[in-house]
Amino acid sequence: MHLPSPNGSSPSDHQVFREWIPSLPEPKWDIAPQRLGTQGRKLVHQRCWGMRSVNMEYGLDPTIGKAIIQAAQEVAEGKLNDHFPLVIWQTGSGTQSNMNANEVIANRAAEILGHKRGDKFVHPNDHVNRSQSSNDTFPTVMHIAAAVEINSCFIPSLKKLHSSLESKSLEFKDIVKIGRTHTQDATPLTLGQEFSGYTTQVKYGIARITDSLPRMYQLAQGGTAVGTGLNTKRGFDVKIATAVADETNLPFVTAENKFEALAAHDAFIETSGALNTISASLMKIANDIRLLGSGPRCGLGELILPENEPGSSIMPSFTVSPTSQSLPFLLQGKVNPTQCEALTMVCAQVMGNHVAITVGGSNGHFELNVFKPMIASGLLRSLRLLGDASASFEKNCVRGIQANRQRISKLLHESLMLVTSLNPKIGYDKAAAVAKKAHKEGTTLKEAALSLNVLTEQEFDALVVPEKMLGPSD
Amino acid sequence: MHLPSPNGSSPSDHQVFREWIPSLPEPKWDIAPQRLGTQGRKLVHQRCWGMRSVNMEYGLDPTIGKAIIQAAQEVAEGKLNDHFPLVIWQTGSGTQSNMNANEVIANRAAEILGHKRGDKFVHPNDHVNRSQSSNDTFPTVMHIAAAVEINSCFIPSLKKLHSSLESKSLEFKDIVKIGRTHTQDATPLTLGQEFSGYTTQVKYGIARITDSLPRMYQLAQGGTAVGTGLNTKRGFDVKIATAVADETNLPFVTAENKFEALAAHDAFIETSGALNTISASLMKIANDIRLLGSGPRCGLGELILPENEPGSSIMPSFTVSPTSQSLPFLLQGKVNPTQCEALTMVCAQVMGNHVAITVGGSNGHFELNVFKPMIASGLLRSLRLLGDASASFEKNCVRGIQANRQRISKLLHESLMLVTSLNPKIGYDKAAAVAKKAHKEGTTLKEAALSLNVLTEQEFDALVVPEKMLGPSD
Amino acid sequence: MHLPSPNGSSPSDHQVFREWIPSLPEPKWDIAPQRLGTQGRKLVHQRCWGMRSVNMEYGLDPTIGKAIIQAAQEVAEGKLNDHFPLVIWQTGSGTQSNMNANEVIANRAAEILGHKRGDKFVHPNDHVNRSQSSNDTFPTVMHIAAAVEINSCFIPSLKKLHSSLESKSLEFKDIVKIGRTHTQDATPLTLGQEFSGYTTQVKYGIARITDSLPRMYQLAQGGTAVGTGLNTKRGFDVKIATAVADETNLPFVTAENKFEALAAHDAFIETSGALNTISASLMKIANDIRLLGSGPRCGLGELILPENEPGSSIMPSFTVSPTSQSLPFLLQGKVNPTQCEALTMVCAQVMGNHVAITVGGSNGHFELNVFKPMIASGLLRSLRLLGDASASFEKNCVRGIQANRQRISKLLHESLMLVTSLNPKIGYDKAAAVAKKAHKEGTTLKEAALSLNVLTEQEFDALVVPEKMLGPSD
Amino acid sequence: MHLPSPNGSSPSDHQVFREWIPSLPEPKWDIAPQRLGTQGRKLVHQRCWGMRSVNMEYGLDPTIGKAIIQAAQEVAEGKLNDHFPLVIWQTGSGTQSNMNANEVIANRAAEILGHKRGDKFVHPNDHVNRSQSSNDTFPTVMHIAAAVEINSCFIPSLKKLHSSLESKSLEFKDIVKIGRTHTQDATPLTLGQEFSGYTTQVKYGIARITDSLPRMYQLAQGGTAVGTGLNTKRGFDVKIATAVADETNLPFVTAENKFEALAAHDAFIETSGALNTISASLMKIANDIRLLGSGPRCGLGELILPENEPGSSIMPSFTVSPTSQSLPFLLQGKVNPTQCEALTMVCAQVMGNHVAITVGGSNGHFELNVFKPMIASGLLRSLRLLGDASASFEKNCVRGIQANRQRISKLLHESLMLVTSLNPKIGYDKAAAVAKKAHKEGTTLKEAALSLNVLTEQEFDALVVPEKMLGPSD
Repeated sequence: MHLPSPNGSSPSDHQVFREWIPSLPEPKWDIAPQRLGTQGRKLVHQRCWGMRSVNMEYGLDPTIGKAIIQAAQEVAEGKLNDHFPLVIWQTGSGTQSNMNANEVIANRAAEILGHKRGDKFVHPNDHVNRSQSSNDTFPTVMHIAAAVEINSCFIPSLKKLHSSLESKSLEFKDIVKIGRTHTQDATPLTLGQEFSGYTTQVKYGIARITDSLPRMYQLAQGGTAVGTGLNTKRGFDVKIATAVADETNLPFVTAENKFEALAAHDAFIETSGALNTISASLMKIANDIRLLGSGPRCGLGELILPENEPGSSIMPSFTVSPTSQSLPFLLQGKVNPTQCEALTMVCAQVMGNHVAITVGGSNGHFELNVFKPMIASGLLRSLRLLGDASASFEKNCVRGIQANRQRISKLLHESLMLVTSLNPKIGYDKAAAVAKKAHKEGTTLKEAALSLNVLTEQEFDALVVPEKMLGPSD
Repeated sequence: MHLPSPNGSSPSDHQVFREWIPSLPEPKWDIAPQRLGTQGRKLVHQRCWGMRSVNMEYGLDPTIGKAIIQAAQEVAEGKLNDHFPLVIWQTGSGTQSNMNANEVIANRAAEILGHKRGDKFVHPNDHVNRSQSSNDTFPTVMHIAAAVEINSCFIPSLKKLHSSLESKSLEFKDIVKIGRTHTQDATPLTLGQEFSGYTTQVKYGIARITDSLPRMYQLAQGGTAVGTGLNTKRGFDVKIATAVADETNLPFVTAENKFEALAAHDAFIETSGALNTISASLMKIANDIRLLGSGPRCGLGELILPENEPGSSIMPSFTVSPTSQSLPFLLQGKVNPTQCEALTMVCAQVMGNHVAITVGGSNGHFELNVFKPMIASGLLRSLRLLGDASASFEKNCVRGIQANRQRISKLLHESLMLVTSLNPKIGYDKAAAVAKKAHKEGTTLKEAALSLNVLTEQEFDALVVPEKMLGPSD
Repeated sequence: MHLPSPNGSSPSDHQVFREWIPSLPEPKWDIAPQRLGTQGRKLVHQRCWGMRSVNMEYGLDPTIGKAIIQAAQEVAEGKLNDHFPLVIWQTGSGTQSNMNANEVIANRAAEILGHKRGDKFVHPNDHVNRSQSSNDTFPTVMHIAAAVEINSCFIPSLKKLHSSLESKSLEFKDIVKIGRTHTQDATPLTLGQEFSGYTTQVKYGIARITDSLPRMYQLAQGGTAVGTGLNTKRGFDVKIATAVADETNLPFVTAENKFEALAAHDAFIETSGALNTISASLMKIANDIRLLGSGPRCGLGELILPENEPGSSIMPSFTVSPTSQSLPFLLQGKVNPTQCEALTMVCAQVMGNHVAITVGGSNGHFELNVFKPMIASGLLRSLRLLGDASASFEKNCVRGIQANRQRISKLLHESLMLVTSLNPKIGYDKAAAVAKKAHKEGTTLKEAALSLNVLTEQEFDALVVPEKMLGPSD
Repeated sequence: MHLPSPNGSSPSDHQVFREWIPSLPEPKWDIAPQRLGTQGRKLVHQRCWGMRSVNMEYGLDPTIGKAIIQAAQEVAEGKLNDHFPLVIWQTGSGTQSNMNANEVIANRAAEILGHKRGDKFVHPNDHVNRSQSSNDTFPTVMHIAAAVEINSCFIPSLKKLHSSLESKSLEFKDIVKIGRTHTQDATPLTLGQEFSGYTTQVKYGIARITDSLPRMYQLAQGGTAVGTGLNTKRGFDVKIATAVADETNLPFVTAENKFEALAAHDAFIETSGALNTISASLMKIANDIRLLGSGPRCGLGELILPENEPGSSIMPSFTVSPTSQSLPFLLQGKVNPTQCEALTMVCAQVMGNHVAITVGGSNGHFELNVFKPMIASGLLRSLRLLGDASASFEKNCVRGIQANRQRISKLLHESLMLVTSLNPKIGYDKAAAVAKKAHKEGTTLKEAALSLNVLTEQEFDALVVPEKMLGPSD
């Protein structure tokens, strides 16, 4: 099975929904919440590290150790996927998935060494799970999976989005437009300034998720059953963390307190909280963009959003144009903000997952939190959804946004808010009278001002210059 | 103390924010979450019922019984408020508030009978709390307080809102306007039809809260400490429920299972869920109204919202016009949708309280849920906030909404969606070409159609009639 | 209509996790949130109904109509699954999935009639989507899918759980045990009484979900693009609803207001709210059961939970016993409450999905809510998770719960709370002294009472009878 | 700046509920969510800073400027509280509260200068609100209020709790006890180790809230109406931030992007997210403590929680002992975990407020988020509730927790989990047989071992030493 990378380094030329369409029956970006497949693989991978670098140092027979490494590698490559049938909704410690991995590796390692499956020549507990317990292994894998996902996919997606918004902010820096507060007309700003707000929101989002990483880099491995480290050797925990750090090139360390690391998953609630904040940011941005792009005739119409989903090639042979409107004429001139819709749906789901993770995280008892698979899959799902949706939104929406300069200019100059500029010249009262008259009679400010004889056309034109209303004065 | 009724039968003539401004330092509509004041009073009141009709039947000395009734009546009237100092964040069974009430009543009853406070001539436990436990009394009072609030304030507020929306729907029934889906221009409908959707949402909201009442009418009284009814007499539970039903004129019954009634507060989660749905409805309606009222020049501008908050009379002498804009010229022509903003803020808070109540409700252990004061105050606060905000929204916004007929008509006729009407005459392809040309060149449909020579002006005018696009054909 | 039933009437003999393990790479019970597969099929199915009973009545060529019906039937049977590649995160109206269905059916119907795919002999819009829009079809399908799931799977699962809890309540009706409030020892009750509380919670849960159905039975079909019913014929909506009702044997009706039916999904928020309440109930029940079953030596130990997950046969050949503990000796005498853990994880997820659905439901704009796929998949996922988890909990836990009578009796008789029975005989003060002495010195109540010479052993034994503390007195 | 500290450096000697009982009718720690009183005052205070240090530099008449400062000071001292009648549920920008402050200050300043109220000698807009808009002032005050609350009250409360837990962890470092995973008996650890987990959770909680501060220190002031800074002078924003930093001794800076600072409140969602995580931590800790303290006879009984709420002196004269149990004999030996209950109720409310803040924060439109008062009051309420509840929990519970060494030892030695120690000597199989026999027959491990003749009593005693099972081996 060739899993394409959702946010990978060589994105295909197809449009984004291509990325979301699985070539196999099982959608790839939801694989984790479904089958813990990713965790399963990382679990094995991590076991592999542990074996290679650590358990053999502590006395594991190198023949068996090397076979375990090879078997684990095969699992990590997905070759034995069919042997990981478990779903999320199992025991709350993930023990079943952990033992699943132990047994697959043990049997495969035995085969490699010429033995039969099930003869326990390589023992799932004594050899593969040596010095480990589900209770420390599973949270270790949770942290590794989340930290790798954050660094390899999620933050890069946000960075691309940030960069794209920043480019738009620069591109639009000279386009003066009406501001809106309370959804009402307000004083002007540039479209670039408006986009700079979005840019800053995403920038801070990156800071937020980054700030949560120090707790995520702490690994439970070495705590075994209740956090004491019973049945391990002194130093085992540090060596494992070092091995993981080397393998992933991320600054993993052994958890300073293994009791916390088993009994609580506050690090997951914290990271989910960062995603929750980022979702609120992205929902605001996407709402603004679809409202600013509303129309084409009866909305705000300031932005022109890229047309998407035209093609048919992405669809299997029975379908032709899955994205075409049911009323065909609507296709002309109607561009639904599909990307905004997909993104905001994802944001809502991430907010919901955050509550699920919080409820699960707050319900641990004594030495073990037993909501681990739900917490792990929830966070991983949120990370992937939000990462992929951000990448898609960047690629298929933000990047192609154009300003409708004509419309923006028309609205700006029809606005009554520009009357502010008249204050220094004619005073508040007369300025207010001009605005009032224009509003009441539906005229332009200039017409109202001239009709009231408060200043000449030349004076008006010299004063009412939106371009001078864009910042503090000197 | 005379407690003014937030949504009472004789509303003052003052504008709504008057209703939200307390005449006393303690805002009345938030009294419950703060001090359980209302519960405290109702607690006493209910004790009064129990005493009067039931405990004396079961042998309580009538002299003491009558003094208790009189003392309880004084508490219910607010005369002894200063003796109820407790806040929400006490023991999770509300025992402290219950004993507070027992002791205040006992001491006051003793005084009435010529004894001194503290001499226990009337005993807080043996006499006032006879046959009762905090564990059944507090949830009983929770149910009474919620059911009374729902019937006396909340549902009436929703009904007023429903009626007002329905009136608007009728008033606007002939105003044809552009529809919008995906925030994009769509086929037309009437403004009355649009408001009929809001009307239906509120109508169903009333059905939802009403459907939750059967569980709310079940009273725990008679279960005592763990639900068994130890230390009560057979029939006590039924008599209490009957007394409460008589007093409140609401169909309270004794809970069919007292164990459930003490250990779980699912009825509160359920009712909070109804409020959560209603909040989602009202947030949708308020968002639509503020967006349809956006402008005055650069928004959609289809609705004219009433101007509020003009006055100064409501403010103490130091303030003049607390609601005036900081930039005075903005007052001209700028009407912020304050009512929509207050309402949507309330909706968000109700959604949050719903999560709090759910978390508390799911965390009961064994024979008792010990999140009672938080659950009770959360639901009561949500009921009052949403009830008052609905009443205010109705009175200060919906009732005064006007249609901007000129603007609505202009947008409708500029729209490209009317092209649909040409299909039967000239076919899809030509109709699409007309729309495309008009969109590209920024002209009207008619101009495009005439320019393409696909039909005459007369034909166009006969066909493009939005009024014929408002329903199914015969 | 033949719907595959995850919890159907003929459950396999395999243990529950078998049910959760997909025979295909794609887990069955999560198919909806992933790929809208189920909706896709139902969508088609419903199209089939529309075609068969209604569109042909309104003039659709019967040759084409019948081919469409046949094609739709094939889709409904899953034969064309590979042609439904879309995921949830598409346009918020579900248009893409709807057009996907239209095109697959059109092409397959064309093939059936001897034409080629793509030649539009059967047109996806003109024929298959006739009189319909995604905007009314998709919410119609959402309602059908949810209502069918509720009736065919969810409520039956809850009813089984209710029945099983009720049986336990009867089985345990004579087992007197210590009550616990505030997690502290309290007065006694029977284990049957304790379980009657759980039984009632589930019973009310069934009432809650049932109460939400009237709004769920309202179908949007006939509203087309914005709710007006443009492009349909008068009566089309009623006929469709009647056809669906006939097909499903459920009381579907046409929505009384189509504008509400397109623009809001309050019915989904409401139903999700019912699931949220049920989740809180089940979390309470599962928490109680795992705590009452805690031990075997150092917990409460009143319940003996069934041992699960022993087998190996369910696992592919590489695994042997995926559920065995990592520390083998722990297997002896240690029965983890896996079913409670799986159920409470599901409850947390359902609470989270509820927030997601609420956020999505509150964010509709104008004539269309565009969070439809997220809302639909969230509710369907919650329904399936909670339904399956309830069924599993019933089958693999509740049904096999045994009372540890010896332990229950020991705790009961060690308790100090029985001192209550001495009050009538020796008065509060002396009774309190007995309890205090026993508590301080760690003795039994009887020892303390005899040592204080407040009554004889015979008197003590006659008075301290927990069996007499289980209800009101006469 | 002198801020009243609810949990300040000189706490009264009264017990904690004293702190929660207001000396005035209006509870102090809930003042903000009710009346924005605190914000109102801080608003004024901040205005004072702006005036003093900045507006006079930019040309404001010093006579007026100084009168404004004096008036503002009076407001900050609470002397004019009665003139701040507004509640949270006003316009979403807080304009009404801002203008309220402007007008009170203007009128009072006019009085100070010998003028009459209302004559606008000191103008609320031109003088008091100079260079400012509600849109930048209100979020500025929100940030100041939150950052000051976090630093002056919230973090100190958490630090005290951390310190107290750490002391307990040390105090209990030699008490070996049974561990529990899945609520089932597991391998041993020390009570000190168990408490070290709690300590670490709180330590990380402090890190989490601290990490959120950099975004909270950014002030919107200088952005005026839409973020451009129209009507301010260049440098005004920086000078205001510097003045606030000087006054508060906190590192406030001017927001790097004013558009983000007005249109989004992601910083509040982020901080609320930190509180949400901390709530989950504290709920876990409080649940553990009440379960470990359950009993006295029929629970786990490992901890002895301090008895609270005994007194009567805190109550007004009518009440005697508001916290006494309704069933008097229960007072003997029954200590309800009231502090755990109050804390967990607060945690649930904070989780709920987090959702409310998230919903409000995600719903901003264009240049302004209009959920400001709800967001501000929600976060401030969460901060105060969680801070006060933590302080109370520390003072009235954690500090006084004692270990029930006898009970702990009894449970430990009855446990079957110690069998692990026999593995190296007699092998897994025999060890498992010993455990199985002991479990089945209800004997001790030693009895079972001797009965099976697998080793001598001396050998058993030498091997089964829980003290050797507390960490990794060398």
